[in-house]
Amino acid sequence: MVISNTQVTHIQIDNYGPWTVTPEPRREVDLQTLQSRLYADLSQLFGNRGGYVFFSRFDNMVAVSNGIDMDTHALVQESVSNRYPVTMSLGVATGRTPVSALGTATEQLQEAGSAQDKDRREILRGRAIDDQFRTDEDVQIAHFDVDDATEKYTDRLNEFDTFIHIEQGYAELMQYMRRAHDSLSFFVGGDNIIVVCPDLGEEAYHDAVEHVRGTVDVQLKVGVGRGRSASDAGMAAKHALEECRATGITVGLDF
Amino acid sequence: MVISNTQVTHIQIDNYGPWTVTPEPRREVDLQTLQSRLYADLSQLFGNRGGYVFFSRFDNMVAVSNGIDMDTHALVQESVSNRYPVTMSLGVATGRTPVSALGTATEQLQEAGSAQDKDRREILRGRAIDDQFRTDEDVQIAHFDVDDATEKYTDRLNEFDTFIHIEQGYAELMQYMRRAHDSLSFFVGGDNIIVVCPDLGEEAYHDAVEHVRGTVDVQLKVGVGRGRSASDAGMAAKHALEECRATGITVGLDF
Amino acid sequence: MVISNTQVTHIQIDNYGPWTVTPEPRREVDLQTLQSRLYADLSQLFGNRGGYVFFSRFDNMVAVSNGIDMDTHALVQESVSNRYPVTMSLGVATGRTPVSALGTATEQLQEAGSAQDKDRREILRGRAIDDQFRTDEDVQIAHFDVDDATEKYTDRLNEFDTFIHIEQGYAELMQYMRRAHDSLSFFVGGDNIIVVCPDLGEEAYHDAVEHVRGTVDVQLKVGVGRGRSASDAGMAAKHALEECRATGITVGLDF
Amino acid sequence: MVISNTQVTHIQIDNYGPWTVTPEPRREVDLQTLQSRLYADLSQLFGNRGGYVFFSRFDNMVAVSNGIDMDTHALVQESVSNRYPVTMSLGVATGRTPVSALGTATEQLQEAGSAQDKDRREILRGRAIDDQFRTDEDVQIAHFDVDDATEKYTDRLNEFDTFIHIEQGYAELMQYMRRAHDSLSFFVGGDNIIVVCPDLGEEAYHDAVEHVRGTVDVQLKVGVGRGRSASDAGMAAKHALEECRATGITVGLDF
Repeated sequence: MVISNTQVTHIQIDNYGPWTVTPEPRREVDLQTLQSRLYADLSQLFGNRGGYVFFSRFDNMVAVSNGIDMDTHALVQESVSNRYPVTMSLGVATGRTPVSALGTATEQLQEAGSAQDKDRREILRGRAIDDQFRTDEDVQIAHFDVDDATEKYTDRLNEFDTFIHIEQGYAELMQYMRRAHDSLSFFVGGDNIIVVCPDLGEEAYHDAVEHVRGTVDVQLKVGVGRGRSASDAGMAAKHALEECRATGITVGLDF
Repeated sequence: MVISNTQVTHIQIDNYGPWTVTPEPRREVDLQTLQSRLYADLSQLFGNRGGYVFFSRFDNMVAVSNGIDMDTHALVQESVSNRYPVTMSLGVATGRTPVSALGTATEQLQEAGSAQDKDRREILRGRAIDDQFRTDEDVQIAHFDVDDATEKYTDRLNEFDTFIHIEQGYAELMQYMRRAHDSLSFFVGGDNIIVVCPDLGEEAYHDAVEHVRGTVDVQLKVGVGRGRSASDAGMAAKHALEECRATGITVGLDF
Repeated sequence: MVISNTQVTHIQIDNYGPWTVTPEPRREVDLQTLQSRLYADLSQLFGNRGGYVFFSRFDNMVAVSNGIDMDTHALVQESVSNRYPVTMSLGVATGRTPVSALGTATEQLQEAGSAQDKDRREILRGRAIDDQFRTDEDVQIAHFDVDDATEKYTDRLNEFDTFIHIEQGYAELMQYMRRAHDSLSFFVGGDNIIVVCPDLGEEAYHDAVEHVRGTVDVQLKVGVGRGRSASDAGMAAKHALEECRATGITVGLDF
Repeated sequence: MVISNTQVTHIQIDNYGPWTVTPEPRREVDLQTLQSRLYADLSQLFGNRGGYVFFSRFDNMVAVSNGIDMDTHALVQESVSNRYPVTMSLGVATGRTPVSALGTATEQLQEAGSAQDKDRREILRGRAIDDQFRTDEDVQIAHFDVDDATEKYTDRLNEFDTFIHIEQGYAELMQYMRRAHDSLSFFVGGDNIIVVCPDLGEEAYHDAVEHVRGTVDVQLKVGVGRGRSASDAGMAAKHALEECRATGITVGLDF
């Protein structure tokens, strides 16, 4: 039996909200630059070790961090504090479902204090999976995109109305996958959504696609991959999605 | 009578989708890094001239570009092609409402070819507002955030469930403001949403806050500013929002 | 008569040395990343307004800032403090020669306190040239490169020995131009050296090339341009250097 | 007996010179930004795996890459081509002295074609040290700085004259260490020089300091460390240099 075993890191910038308006509101252009570059850096820091980081709210980010131990988390934390005017706290946890893993990761930070506690800085808590317990099926990642988004939307509507359609598809999928499968769905640009899943089969994905189509009339397709790390699973999912494109099927599984 | 006069730039990476999977899928970490750094750079390039850029879908971005002429747009376009493996096309337009301005901007790109046309590169079309016709009330920006987001969500729920609440508030607001007021709403991180509006009065904002509260039970507040440029209007909005925080009111107008 | 009128900004990271070893030595990789990114950002911040920044020692940089007023300097200063863990001080001055301008700029910082004074932060002193006094010949820039560097060195020696040759040419030129012409010479990568000069004629450049060839046997050529700003003068110099490449001459003047 | 065993990577941007002037000269600000960000990225990509990268000429860089295998080099190469408008070639080699290692690394690139060959792209050649042959003394790094640079120079001279002094110290040291000890010396900002050395003893460093003092009257001190990787050796060297600062000695050895 295949059991997924997702390791999740909750990344939280320490006391960020108050910082953005102290002593008075900082220029939005600088905040946007800071946030997106910090995300880019974390993307590289985790990504070059097989992890995936999702920007979600930018001041709070979520990483799939299988294969990245606590020492490496400490190094990433230090590297950020060496190069940014803000620091960040990290909670690391594992679970049978991505949501349960994230739940534990978040709790570790919450127990250490509020996200806006002035004195709570650079918390690092939790536990990474020991190498000996890792398997090639620990992570399952589904990569969705919107069918013919360019023809149907981008080349026909104004960019905001296109964006609303994509956004509606995402909003519906994220809630469905959370509710039905304890999965974490993240918009990653264009018409792409990456979902961190427990061990789900083909039917679950057909249901998800059907749900979104029926509810907000956005037609998705999805490639699914498994792997030892997020990057392995994610690359397998990309290849499966290419297969969907080539053959016209809606759900492609690379396992 | 006050009339807003928003200048909008539609930024579109040329033929990006195909590039991301040619000759085979590129690593997600590199795509995420590329996208977020390109956004950060555009944020600086427009932002240091008074503009705001919103990442929206990352491969398509929207800028409020009052005060930025076509020559400067050309320079920004060249700077990106000098430093990235991709190029981008720009459509520039003005309108009484942000949506009508964006509509025109998008049409200019669509008329030049599909977003995935291999031979359509570095289009630059449209027209910027002549300096002599600019006024101190051309841009109206509303800065929303979620009341007590840290206490209600961040410090209590797992990060994904917090994110779902914020995201629902955003999804509802973006559609309402589009439909009711031809406005463009963008999530900018944390619990913050920036909306590019035509000349709206206090009641319109009360209605919007009420609509979101009634529909998805997320309580917003909002500061509104006007200015000659996005950064002027946006900074005024931030100060108005600080006023809301200090006094407990829901809608603060800085004009 | 042509008189150059260079405006120079001395950029100094506040109390940087002590910061790099407090509470204990920070990782070199982070320092290198911080320094080079800060330089890249300043390069954009000044460069998009017509200025040139040279990294020189990284913790102290020199900009040619004609056309950039004190308010803009303040904005650049704020943008850095919003996005980096360090702050910087700026001295701005003008002079008939680049060295005299820099001398005044540096003095303004020195008078405000030591570079390693813990309490001296974000100094901003000096004066920019009023727009009405600017001319199209205020800045003179010379762009040198090494003749046939690829054939003579890069493709034949180990990279370090190539580097030593280039570096020797640079070391000799920088001292000669400082002594003979109160000019500021900066290595900018590859085999390129950019020199900020007062109003010098063709013979001065022939002498410089001859001096370097005679002293360290490195053969240079040079294109020289004038302009209202560093970028205008620098681009003219680049075109003049291309002319040298095409025609085989040693000194090309674009004026 | 201790034998150093430095693994060196020669990083060369493919056909960069011609690219910077095709179809006509690109803006210097964009080139500077591109170069310094590429260096920052490589610094992170190698640095997060224990390596050090030195910018040297920016279009040609040198890395100490002990612990980084060929597959990882391939990944770094791919990551750059995914995110930059240029590609790079990599030669990897080992040797008893840093210069001999670099010599072999460079030859591998030269044998594949000229640095300005249009058709030579993304070469990856050479061999990394097998893990089983690595030892804790493979890398020796010396970290020099200038005694009282702030008091003697920065706080007293104009920034360019300070820079000339530092630069002279560097130029002299780099040539001496190359000639006497087959070592690679790199200026890393401020008044800091990092030297990659074979297994040298205390006396060699005293001689080097004395040579620079006697020749150009710049007083250096140095901390020296050994390690399995550049970052281990480099951090040990930094601590040894702190020891020099604390105690007033000129050469500190952390082994």
